[in-house]
Amino acid sequence: MRIARFSLDGNVAFGVVEGDAQTEGGPVLDIIKGHPFAEFERSGQKLPLDKVRLLPPVLPNKVVAIGRNYAEHAKELGNEVPDAPVVFFKPSTSVCGPHDPVTYPSFSSEVHYEAELAVVIGRLCKDVPRERVKDVILGYTCGNDITARDIQRSELQWARAKGFDTSCPLGPWVETELDASDLGVMCTVNGEQRQLGRTSEMIRSVEDLVVHITEAMTLLPGDVILTGTPAGVGPLTIGDEVAVTIEGIGTLTNKVVKRD
Amino acid sequence: MRIARFSLDGNVAFGVVEGDAQTEGGPVLDIIKGHPFAEFERSGQKLPLDKVRLLPPVLPNKVVAIGRNYAEHAKELGNEVPDAPVVFFKPSTSVCGPHDPVTYPSFSSEVHYEAELAVVIGRLCKDVPRERVKDVILGYTCGNDITARDIQRSELQWARAKGFDTSCPLGPWVETELDASDLGVMCTVNGEQRQLGRTSEMIRSVEDLVVHITEAMTLLPGDVILTGTPAGVGPLTIGDEVAVTIEGIGTLTNKVVKRD
Repeated sequence: MRIARFSLDGNVAFGVVEGDAQTEGGPVLDIIKGHPFAEFERSGQKLPLDKVRLLPPVLPNKVVAIGRNYAEHAKELGNEVPDAPVVFFKPSTSVCGPHDPVTYPSFSSEVHYEAELAVVIGRLCKDVPRERVKDVILGYTCGNDITARDIQRSELQWARAKGFDTSCPLGPWVETELDASDLGVMCTVNGEQRQLGRTSEMIRSVEDLVVHITEAMTLLPGDVILTGTPAGVGPLTIGDEVAVTIEGIGTLTNKVVKRD
Repeated sequence: MRIARFSLDGNVAFGVVEGDAQTEGGPVLDIIKGHPFAEFERSGQKLPLDKVRLLPPVLPNKVVAIGRNYAEHAKELGNEVPDAPVVFFKPSTSVCGPHDPVTYPSFSSEVHYEAELAVVIGRLCKDVPRERVKDVILGYTCGNDITARDIQRSELQWARAKGFDTSCPLGPWVETELDASDLGVMCTVNGEQRQLGRTSEMIRSVEDLVVHITEAMTLLPGDVILTGTPAGVGPLTIGDEVAVTIEGIGTLTNKVVKRD
């Protein structure tokens, strides 16, 4: 099931996406009564998907991100594969949605895309045992861990390099029925392929990461884990259209814009 | 004015603290009608302070923390004073209040206290010019940037070392009328003094930090900036009572407990 969050005429709601571009009349949203983090019903009230504005599919309290989780990507930046997962935060203020502008920050001249599988947490959890990980996951979406690479190199901690406003596009929706162990992850810039990997190449699996993170901290419904990026990272320039596509989920597209 | 957040019989509210231990009958809370981040009135309905449970004085969306902002502290850990402020996040799930237990994490055997001046942001802001910094600050409270020092040394990014549950005690209240440029900052463990510094020793002032952080990211009402710790950090063990006292604000006390 694909659960989207959207706005229409100033109202925000969740809906289940039905159909696709091949469906007669195009895909529609069946508006959800209640909240996707609990039992919910579909209202039967349907809207054409192209009539609404898609929002980030969740509003995470925190985004917990993982660095150097694909060996080829660690190597391309001249880094060793770390003994423990590299864990860092992107704040809620960095999150934006499908087709939202990514604003090139004032303090960087080297902003990179990083296509990533994003795990959406479905329930409050701490100290999750490996065999219970599937129970705390609502589903998966596409993420782009946009990074000011020059600042990442010059600052010891990555809060500014990876935490600036609009540095965390998420979307287009949450796919709740998906085996995430071997999915294609692709990034294109202006339609040209730049990254192509598979989640099976991840050094730490989704299960490993949830166990490792929740050993330290509580995850809340709507929190997101970004699972690391495959090789092929590179620069974005103003005007670029960057798209993250994950097999079985869909495509998250954003345009890079100049600051006002 | 001292603004506290408290619970009584399951209800949560804000109140203005009036009086102190020397006042006849002890200090009281005048319950606020509305919200301290906007214009508000005092209700005139007063409660004895010792009858309520004080909560973290704000519920931050994010805590932005600064490392190595006191030269003597950078030196004691064998670090250079960095060219740019070291910026990192503590998540909202790490926040706890006055007298809340600090739970010793399972994955560390070297947990340290770090007494810090905490800045409470009063309004949504981005790209704050230096001369407007005072307008975005609601006030100041005490913070303890509790750190798993062994994990900080072994992991490249500090999300787990400084982001575990209960690693960010804040309180006891927000003091809104205070010149924070030269305040005494003290930490005691079981009544013995361990840290004693002055905010005038900070390498980057509160103004510098707000400018630097908001160059990258939006701060929201209730967000907190931890401004770094003076020299004298050291270990906590289970059963210890750790207290952060800041001149003109008050004392934040927490006890270190074993995990259930």
